[in-house]
Amino acid sequence: MAWHTRSSRTVYANRWISVREDEVTGPAGDGVYGVVTMRHPAVFVVAMDARARICLIRLERYTTGGGLEVPAGGTDGEDPLVAAKRELREETGFTASEWTLLGTMNALNGVAIAPEHVYLARGLLRTQDGARARLEEGISDVVWVPFAEAVAMVADGRVTDGETIAALAYAGIHLERFR
Amino acid sequence: MAWHTRSSRTVYANRWISVREDEVTGPAGDGVYGVVTMRHPAVFVVAMDARARICLIRLERYTTGGGLEVPAGGTDGEDPLVAAKRELREETGFTASEWTLLGTMNALNGVAIAPEHVYLARGLLRTQDGARARLEEGISDVVWVPFAEAVAMVADGRVTDGETIAALAYAGIHLERFR
Repeated sequence: MAWHTRSSRTVYANRWISVREDEVTGPAGDGVYGVVTMRHPAVFVVAMDARARICLIRLERYTTGGGLEVPAGGTDGEDPLVAAKRELREETGFTASEWTLLGTMNALNGVAIAPEHVYLARGLLRTQDGARARLEEGISDVVWVPFAEAVAMVADGRVTDGETIAALAYAGIHLERFR
Repeated sequence: MAWHTRSSRTVYANRWISVREDEVTGPAGDGVYGVVTMRHPAVFVVAMDARARICLIRLERYTTGGGLEVPAGGTDGEDPLVAAKRELREETGFTASEWTLLGTMNALNGVAIAPEHVYLARGLLRTQDGARARLEEGISDVVWVPFAEAVAMVADGRVTDGETIAALAYAGIHLERFR
């Protein structure tokens, strides 16, 4: 084992994250390590309609400002698939009949424990749900773009959310567009 | 503007991250927001050799355990390209004559300000550098796999690092393997 924890104390916690500082002995010797732990895993949804368009939402992040992202959110302790269905409905107004778990990844692993599940959702059906949730999440727009256009938006910097880029990669592999 | 900051206090800081708790008024009303800020941007390198193989390193993360990742690290305040060259040399022993900035993304933007630059490195040349750095970073192996194999490793869960997956997506787009 490359790492040994000599002590650990929680330095901050809120509803969504906790932060601890550990005294560690690692490959480079003794030091401190600040670890950010997400209280719950997150879910990311690539929702694809019958015309092979995918859904992106435009929202204002408190951290990084405005951007286009796939529908996503915390699981709040729910089963990840239940959370993915809820987030898609709240953030876009759509339900889906076909769900595929594409993979589970970790973000920012130099400092964080942040597991993230990526789903592909197809068989979409529009509902009237979510208008209030979209308002409360600061979502200003829901757009549908051809998959190839979403990929082009990564290339030219219109999409910069790391998790959205990774989710598109998972979907691209599954759809045999990325090899 | 969707967010207004009413107060802000630093609750934790070390050499690599700072954490603040802000009182905010956002789209859903008043609340607190914990924000993790990386002190410096990070860099990720997709290094491709003349046989179209890419480099993955195996290392033990204190946060998430063992895994395969592209060479990466913090910029420590350096120019990102300088940092990318240093990380590649330290983590793999290779230098590269051709560097392409593929894009800049943000990780974990629900809670973090974590900018990340992704490079493609080609024209590789092996050196004897980095053996000590690899030891200190807990790198146990440096492997070269065909690009398509790295993509397959994402699909079947052998690669789970979110930034590595996004970096492969950027490289795949640039190399016209992802569309």
